[in-house]
Amino acid sequence: MIQVAVMGYGTVGSGVVEVIEKNKEEINKKSGEDIEIKYILDLREFPGDPYENKVVHDVEQILNDQDVKIICETMGGIKPAYDFTKRALLAGKSVCTSNKELVATHGPELIRIAHENKCNYLFEASVGGGIPIIRPLNYSLTAEKVDAITGILNGTTNYILSKMEKEGAGFEETLKEAQEKGYAERNPEADVEGYDACRKIAILSSLMCGKNVKYQDIYTEGITKITEADFVYAHACGKTIKLLARSWEDKDGSFYAMVAPFMISKTHPLFMVNGVFNAVCVHGNMLGDSMYYGRGAGKLPTASAVVSDVVDCARHIGKVIMCFWDAEDVALTGIEEAKRRFFVRVSTEKESKALQVFEQASVIEADVPGEFAFITEEMTEKEFNKKAEETGIISRIRIEE
Amino acid sequence: MIQVAVMGYGTVGSGVVEVIEKNKEEINKKSGEDIEIKYILDLREFPGDPYENKVVHDVEQILNDQDVKIICETMGGIKPAYDFTKRALLAGKSVCTSNKELVATHGPELIRIAHENKCNYLFEASVGGGIPIIRPLNYSLTAEKVDAITGILNGTTNYILSKMEKEGAGFEETLKEAQEKGYAERNPEADVEGYDACRKIAILSSLMCGKNVKYQDIYTEGITKITEADFVYAHACGKTIKLLARSWEDKDGSFYAMVAPFMISKTHPLFMVNGVFNAVCVHGNMLGDSMYYGRGAGKLPTASAVVSDVVDCARHIGKVIMCFWDAEDVALTGIEEAKRRFFVRVSTEKESKALQVFEQASVIEADVPGEFAFITEEMTEKEFNKKAEETGIISRIRIEE
Repeated sequence: MIQVAVMGYGTVGSGVVEVIEKNKEEINKKSGEDIEIKYILDLREFPGDPYENKVVHDVEQILNDQDVKIICETMGGIKPAYDFTKRALLAGKSVCTSNKELVATHGPELIRIAHENKCNYLFEASVGGGIPIIRPLNYSLTAEKVDAITGILNGTTNYILSKMEKEGAGFEETLKEAQEKGYAERNPEADVEGYDACRKIAILSSLMCGKNVKYQDIYTEGITKITEADFVYAHACGKTIKLLARSWEDKDGSFYAMVAPFMISKTHPLFMVNGVFNAVCVHGNMLGDSMYYGRGAGKLPTASAVVSDVVDCARHIGKVIMCFWDAEDVALTGIEEAKRRFFVRVSTEKESKALQVFEQASVIEADVPGEFAFITEEMTEKEFNKKAEETGIISRIRIEE
Repeated sequence: MIQVAVMGYGTVGSGVVEVIEKNKEEINKKSGEDIEIKYILDLREFPGDPYENKVVHDVEQILNDQDVKIICETMGGIKPAYDFTKRALLAGKSVCTSNKELVATHGPELIRIAHENKCNYLFEASVGGGIPIIRPLNYSLTAEKVDAITGILNGTTNYILSKMEKEGAGFEETLKEAQEKGYAERNPEADVEGYDACRKIAILSSLMCGKNVKYQDIYTEGITKITEADFVYAHACGKTIKLLARSWEDKDGSFYAMVAPFMISKTHPLFMVNGVFNAVCVHGNMLGDSMYYGRGAGKLPTASAVVSDVVDCARHIGKVIMCFWDAEDVALTGIEEAKRRFFVRVSTEKESKALQVFEQASVIEADVPGEFAFITEEMTEKEFNKKAEETGIISRIRIEE
């Protein structure tokens, strides 16, 4: 029997307990041993909860118990999760986490400590909720040189954008509705400004190159400036708008990472990823594109991913599971060097100026009063910014081919 | 250093050699040791080939060489692959294969022999080409009770159906074109009759339930009877037609598996899987739907999957990798018990009869001379067959919701 502690009895933590209970038979079979929850760490009491008697308030009780081999860290945030995780790993206890903030900030250090202590720090649930993506990257695509990852990694913004597209509604009203339905937080900044997607693409990018991509270095732009009119134009040219988290390595070895709204066309595999669903496209030099799709958040999907890590740890007690993520920081190339086409909106009075500056513009036929829009030829972001300043534009959205 | 032999230097086998050479750095890093190809088994000579001096014609040379730890079986077919694989496993050599025929026929026996000899029989490449699907099922969805798998598992038929839809062309002419372009074999039976997809869903279904689903027991219907008119109707009601390989477990524990053309609607995750792409939808009781998408065939994608198995074997020399597939046969429930809606075409003169027999039919507005079509309410296949016989229908396609 393998004894497990759950740290943080909130949404994901209680989901972990539920998954372990409900799918006991499958989980024990795949673990090769019975998995038992010994402690649940939380500051609160849970009178009447079926696991009431497992709740403890002092982390020492868990860290000092030799029988606890695996810990699920579902607390979130850096403090005190970082300290608890480090001490658990130093004590040789594997930690499985859904905490993207902590993984993006201290991932390589915690992985190193784990490996030095013959245990594991696993984080399948930190990206894409229940979608298996960390393990496919680490265990499946091992014969590939992965050179690009493109994901829809945030359910809230994808829900808002899908809704805006479908209903022709504006950002503010759609956000409000999403908040009322519980799909967006009362303080929605982390989602709508792209910070959440930024942490997640930092993790995936680090695994892609085996070194550390600092989330602070990633250019991040949210969806707050996307309007109804943008979708009118997108629709007119057979495209949609998605918040993409992207990282890619150029042929010259330059490494880029960014989060921003992009226009994508109907033939793009991410086009049909709607609502709260997430998906990750991975490009490898032998396989080409592969895609992983599913529920990017939610109690049970996320908990299922944490428990899949528990199973992996249970099967590798005393052994290190392959994970390459060195502490050495990757020097990202500034996105102003990246080449692409741009969707641009300009007020009607600047039409002749715009078409003079953007020589190869292909105008989009759509009926939006007082303005017009076009798609540029391919150019670097730097070139584009210069032309945009010279013209005086309303707004622009990048195009992902 | 870990020495590898490749058996069969055809398309996939030469791809394996190419992948190991091209991505040497990544592969050696992830394997933890250098991977070296020692032998290539083939009846032919390959004068001028860079690996000419590794080619051998006698399997004994490989089976008797203690240094060879891993064998890639890329020969295909049962004979002599079955015999070679068995002897390799008995000698403690792991085998990685792309041979779906052999895996579907002798999978559980070969896995058992491997485990008894502390080596592994891995077959990621046997289903979905380069799409990671076996490993996600075995290692990632370990906290799930998987209750349904639905896949587009054959590139040739998906190419033909996509082309028929796009161009309004008939089956025969599209098949001919696919053959000319090399997307279909000169003898296309295995693809267009669904036999290839049947082998693949047998493998996935077996992994889903941990027991043996015999491919011979799976109801299999190909795409040869699909016509232009079917796509006219499909288009008229926002659907398309795909050859789906499906298996699912009902709440009462009945287990079904089948291969057949289905109509699916725009909101189905498999709707956008076009051309030579394949995808597999997996439904779990905690995660809901997840989907795995990519190139289902082709030299390098398939070879990449074989080599990912080599890496896995290299990391587990002398250790058994988890795989549950017992020899015990699953008793499949006949599909006549399965409930669904049906798309039905009937000649105009039988309209009143048809609408009398199928009371709740919703007629599809489309202009096909001399006939009309409708979608039935939900009923078992048995009930449907009775009504169809009573009416005298032109054809029917099952609906997947």
